[in-house]
Amino acid sequence: MAPLAPSGVRPKIVIVGAGFGGLSAAKALAKAPADVTVIDQHNYHLFQPLLYQVATAGLSPADIASPIRSVLARQANTTVLLAEVSGIDIERKQAIAEDRRIDYDFLILATGARHAYFGHDDWARHAPGLKRIDDATYIRRRILLAFEKAESEADPARRRALLNFVVVGGGPTGVEMAGAIAELARKALKSDFRTIDPASARILLVEAAPRRLTPFDPRLSEAARQSLERLGVEVRLGAPVTDCDECGVAIGAERIEAETIIWGAGVMASAADLWLRAKTDAAGRVEVQADLSLPGHPEIFVIGDTALVKSSDGKPLPGIAPVAKQQGAYVARLLIDRISGRARAPFHYRDFGILATIGRKHAVVEIGPIRLSGYFAWLLWCFAHIYFLIGFRNRLAVVLNWAWNYFTFQQGTRLITGITGSRMTQLDEAMPPLEASPAGTKSDNPS
Amino acid sequence: MAPLAPSGVRPKIVIVGAGFGGLSAAKALAKAPADVTVIDQHNYHLFQPLLYQVATAGLSPADIASPIRSVLARQANTTVLLAEVSGIDIERKQAIAEDRRIDYDFLILATGARHAYFGHDDWARHAPGLKRIDDATYIRRRILLAFEKAESEADPARRRALLNFVVVGGGPTGVEMAGAIAELARKALKSDFRTIDPASARILLVEAAPRRLTPFDPRLSEAARQSLERLGVEVRLGAPVTDCDECGVAIGAERIEAETIIWGAGVMASAADLWLRAKTDAAGRVEVQADLSLPGHPEIFVIGDTALVKSSDGKPLPGIAPVAKQQGAYVARLLIDRISGRARAPFHYRDFGILATIGRKHAVVEIGPIRLSGYFAWLLWCFAHIYFLIGFRNRLAVVLNWAWNYFTFQQGTRLITGITGSRMTQLDEAMPPLEASPAGTKSDNPS
Repeated sequence: MAPLAPSGVRPKIVIVGAGFGGLSAAKALAKAPADVTVIDQHNYHLFQPLLYQVATAGLSPADIASPIRSVLARQANTTVLLAEVSGIDIERKQAIAEDRRIDYDFLILATGARHAYFGHDDWARHAPGLKRIDDATYIRRRILLAFEKAESEADPARRRALLNFVVVGGGPTGVEMAGAIAELARKALKSDFRTIDPASARILLVEAAPRRLTPFDPRLSEAARQSLERLGVEVRLGAPVTDCDECGVAIGAERIEAETIIWGAGVMASAADLWLRAKTDAAGRVEVQADLSLPGHPEIFVIGDTALVKSSDGKPLPGIAPVAKQQGAYVARLLIDRISGRARAPFHYRDFGILATIGRKHAVVEIGPIRLSGYFAWLLWCFAHIYFLIGFRNRLAVVLNWAWNYFTFQQGTRLITGITGSRMTQLDEAMPPLEASPAGTKSDNPS
Repeated sequence: MAPLAPSGVRPKIVIVGAGFGGLSAAKALAKAPADVTVIDQHNYHLFQPLLYQVATAGLSPADIASPIRSVLARQANTTVLLAEVSGIDIERKQAIAEDRRIDYDFLILATGARHAYFGHDDWARHAPGLKRIDDATYIRRRILLAFEKAESEADPARRRALLNFVVVGGGPTGVEMAGAIAELARKALKSDFRTIDPASARILLVEAAPRRLTPFDPRLSEAARQSLERLGVEVRLGAPVTDCDECGVAIGAERIEAETIIWGAGVMASAADLWLRAKTDAAGRVEVQADLSLPGHPEIFVIGDTALVKSSDGKPLPGIAPVAKQQGAYVARLLIDRISGRARAPFHYRDFGILATIGRKHAVVEIGPIRLSGYFAWLLWCFAHIYFLIGFRNRLAVVLNWAWNYFTFQQGTRLITGITGSRMTQLDEAMPPLEASPAGTKSDNPS
């Protein structure tokens, strides 16, 4: 294959999004004979798999985020730009970011996904999802304020609703959130209140699928359910949420009053499809070729949660960090090859399995044919997450926080920030801005 | 003196504010035969002396804040209430907090202070002060965004203004902020940018007083000035700010263009004087008796930054943590005595000195006749601050963060949260709410 960039000129590679996919591409291009620009609307890379621990007061935001500039500081060929991309000019080969246009010869779109409400966008204000740091601190505030408000609530029915927590969606995020809220209520907050018993909080995990916690194998799903129930979480399978408002949820005919509802049920790929006017599946993922390029545009690549890539059994690859990282590194190698006129075989995903943790000492792990649950699986989970956390400092802080939480049952970061005093009931004020609807300028970026 | 509470009934003690003064009173009342209620508008006690390190990306908010409930969890006689107090009904002996009225037999007001602009409240939006966690994350965002915006700014004059930082006020807060910004620019950000050199940032510390950095001894003031200048801070003495807008400050006839202005020049006591219709000095501090009670109201005490208490030389005690803590403990002991009908001698402040740090290895320390500056003073400063940080976990996290920063010159918490993408130039959106003016319902609480 002939090089696509004008000969003698260093090609310009623009990466939109510094999540797992984008950052992995950028790092693999460290020594490439190209000028690399990484654009993100945040100044940090976020280790999303641990975001639920920020939402449940176990970790500080800085523990799971690294400044993109620091991560890439030593790559002389790489520039980092803090800006929000609003579109792509495919004809002129330019990324449009605020008042600037950034030329590219090759474009890598790694803009991630946001949570989706299956046509019920009005549920977003009642049932926040967990994708960004601001989501996590907002959910943390809601959870902690629910206990605070219950402490001074005289009406028993209202107090009950304040101590009901509904987590929607039985995927890894939902399982981890429900377990962490249960431990917060039963352990960390145990002796802090005078009129309520935080341990009496009711935590429900509701999942629409009839038989198991997705996406795990049935035996693991059962092990996860049992671990959750030991922590005091009620697991409801085959329980699709049919309505959701500020006072609770409806599951078919049943109504559950709850002040705190957390959404972990669905994701929708970000706006890249609109920028590209590309074909997508129902979840907004862009259909790409075997080399992850856009059909008809060998200079544009789509990776991570934004891309629809099928595995050998025909099922779409899941929206998890290892997929995004492998795709980022693949596109980087492909570009290095293409710059020097070489071709590269199609992308192939190496499946290292999936894992989810349940509270302080249980996890479920599925690695190919191997299925583990319990304490050993939890150790594996810890090891994997610490290993992949970017930056030595973060790793150390996380280990110390975990060790502290483990031995003391205390959560160290129980701060309610952003709202105070009489404004504390007006939660919406401090709610992070909702994503624009897909019809508008969808602009949920990565990280 | 006869007991003031009805005999045979446990008296109700209400403490408003869980800063250094209020929390110290609450802890000293742990075993008192009384029902203690601590009301604060935040759910955490804040270690304010290290707030400047949150503002300069050295520490996370959770590192310097402890949940009030956790701190007091083991005190069976103590209830914590998260609420904003808006007034005191002196006749009925009730604290008014949102829709509740809390009865008291004894009231301790420890509502702290906020920054003051000497009649120029409109400067607040351009020159934020540093009192609360939200102030600190807001200032952190402004400082970090100034570098980000400079990186993509084409106009040299504008880029210059983005890299100018003006700290107003040469007290300990100003000295510490200026030193920390200088180290951030010269060390931590050194290799992160491509078009700007962060080390070229100009940091000005301006102080109206003509001859020295208040409140230190002239020799220490000179040592501090030299340390700051070695870090690259320009120190301007006798330089009162005469105007301040979104583009910079005026110092007499001189105009300095600066995107980032930080206010450390003055404080004003919180609203307690209005609640009490009490006599105050120009800084809003309530005049109290020798036992810290309000004249004519032996059941009401005012402590910490809210109170005007003179030392033996006739000068008001400074608004620092040791004063507030000693006053809190004094009032607690006085109440325990009074409940059992005993009297107590007037409050006497034991002066353990003042200290301020300058960057990574200098400090100035003044303890009675002893004056220290340099590295040994810095070690003393470290020791004192770690020792007084509440909660073992915080102490450990702070030590590790410091050790990390010290050996690597990296700042670990450089996150810009709250604003993203195209909204990043609209800083005001995410600015913490300004305090209401003293004429209104002044409501800046403590912590």
